[in-house]
Amino acid sequence: MSKIRTIVVSGGTHGNERTGVRLIKKWQDHPEIYTGLCPGVEIQTVLANESAIRLNRRYDFQDLNRSFSNTSLAIEGKSLCYEINRARELNAKFGPKGKDTKTDLLIDVHNTTANMGLCLILSERDPFCMRASALLTKEFPTAKIYYQPEERGMSPYFGTIAKADLCLEIGPQCHGTLNAALFEETERLVIRYLELVRHWNEGELQKLPGTTVDVYTQYKDIDYPRDERGDICAMIHPDLRGKDYEPLKTGDKLYRTFDGKDILFDGKDVGADTVWPIFIDEAAYYEKKISMSLTLKTTEVW
Amino acid sequence: MSKIRTIVVSGGTHGNERTGVRLIKKWQDHPEIYTGLCPGVEIQTVLANESAIRLNRRYDFQDLNRSFSNTSLAIEGKSLCYEINRARELNAKFGPKGKDTKTDLLIDVHNTTANMGLCLILSERDPFCMRASALLTKEFPTAKIYYQPEERGMSPYFGTIAKADLCLEIGPQCHGTLNAALFEETERLVIRYLELVRHWNEGELQKLPGTTVDVYTQYKDIDYPRDERGDICAMIHPDLRGKDYEPLKTGDKLYRTFDGKDILFDGKDVGADTVWPIFIDEAAYYEKKISMSLTLKTTEVW
Repeated sequence: MSKIRTIVVSGGTHGNERTGVRLIKKWQDHPEIYTGLCPGVEIQTVLANESAIRLNRRYDFQDLNRSFSNTSLAIEGKSLCYEINRARELNAKFGPKGKDTKTDLLIDVHNTTANMGLCLILSERDPFCMRASALLTKEFPTAKIYYQPEERGMSPYFGTIAKADLCLEIGPQCHGTLNAALFEETERLVIRYLELVRHWNEGELQKLPGTTVDVYTQYKDIDYPRDERGDICAMIHPDLRGKDYEPLKTGDKLYRTFDGKDILFDGKDVGADTVWPIFIDEAAYYEKKISMSLTLKTTEVW
Repeated sequence: MSKIRTIVVSGGTHGNERTGVRLIKKWQDHPEIYTGLCPGVEIQTVLANESAIRLNRRYDFQDLNRSFSNTSLAIEGKSLCYEINRARELNAKFGPKGKDTKTDLLIDVHNTTANMGLCLILSERDPFCMRASALLTKEFPTAKIYYQPEERGMSPYFGTIAKADLCLEIGPQCHGTLNAALFEETERLVIRYLELVRHWNEGELQKLPGTTVDVYTQYKDIDYPRDERGDICAMIHPDLRGKDYEPLKTGDKLYRTFDGKDILFDGKDVGADTVWPIFIDEAAYYEKKISMSLTLKTTEVW
């Protein structure tokens, strides 16, 4: 399997997700932290959405992490939308998206308001990402694997401009804030990924026996119930709040309406009797009309 | 003591603090919830910052809840700043700020990312607000009293356009999200205040014996340590996180730097050996250069 020669570590793809922003600022001030971790590998760091970071908002004009599809990158001419231009800039510098990309691995650090711990998101079944992530679920008590397969050309995510990518979702953390314990754990996690790149390039990681892991695979996003005006008319049920990665079965409490009624989960509505929700009550997803992402859980050897 | 004849209940003074936004929307759709609570009293509801609510941001151009000083309200002509105009509109409708105001009591519902439970903020020692709030700390397990005295004319807060005001800070809740349990508790709290207005107007509340309460009085705001660029160089210490209302003494851990060093609290820096911090890690206060508000705790009979 091919070696990893070029890595980009990014933060601030969403400007108010401060763990990644501060991690990248720290590493840019102190490159000695990471330069020795995988000899022979070029590691670059980037603050992806500089405008949104200044504004302390998710984005300025549109979500940068929804701006990297081939269609979006193909828009010609200077746009009035900062993120359209910034996505092309990042793609020119670290891509271009496709088989000739300059970047072998992109690690993008995010935060979520949901109770997701260290969520390791794989966009495809890349051998290094699978093996390394599986090992790290054993080292970090709150680490979980979320597999969100995407057709790479159509996918709008920043990571897809690289050959392989990992998106790290760290939570629960309110956007615009920092949590010292989560910051330190995230830094250790990224350092461990880089150390595992060294083991991969030396051929050692491949020789280890496989790791048995729970894999949460994207199944379907669902929205809040809404009224005729389009306003939500219920909240996450108190019994479900913070229960990311736990099974949700037909008859379990799903939402609580503003007038105090319970709405139960019905597997028939989604075509699966048991699902494992994540991104429960993520602040940024209200506008995307997503109350949570439903996943299916499998146990695999990676 | 004078009766309360006109009340305004407001939400969305900060557009991304959704408990108040949804409470007011619910009450505007169902006025029967509150109309019978205090006979003879005119109760109005208002979504204060409509532009920010649409944007799901704290504010559009500037913080509406810092736009109600006499100086700010006296600016003449139409401003390009939405909140300057909106503050004058609200002042014209519910004020005008000063002794001739149309509103006897304004209850403004906010959220905070800090672990402050139901924080009842009094801007002055108003007899009704003191007596009612003290009683409610016995009915609601997480309710606390924060006394933040302000010169009313200079004060920039919305509530100061009324004769008396209560600002309710509900947390911990990430901005842009909802928490069903906190929503329901907040609604019960506001309803109880309105019921106590009835008891006040009937002269019953005044006859009750005084309630012994802990009062947290504003002492001083402090900022994060910052580097020469003005960037913060530390986070709230994990030992202090979530410890709003608990005593902080000289030698206690205060901040953790990004390179893992502890910064201890030194009472000499603030002129008090023990303080009781609140608004610890409030997301909206990073830009205001406030890491927490230090209070002094007293026990009083209200």
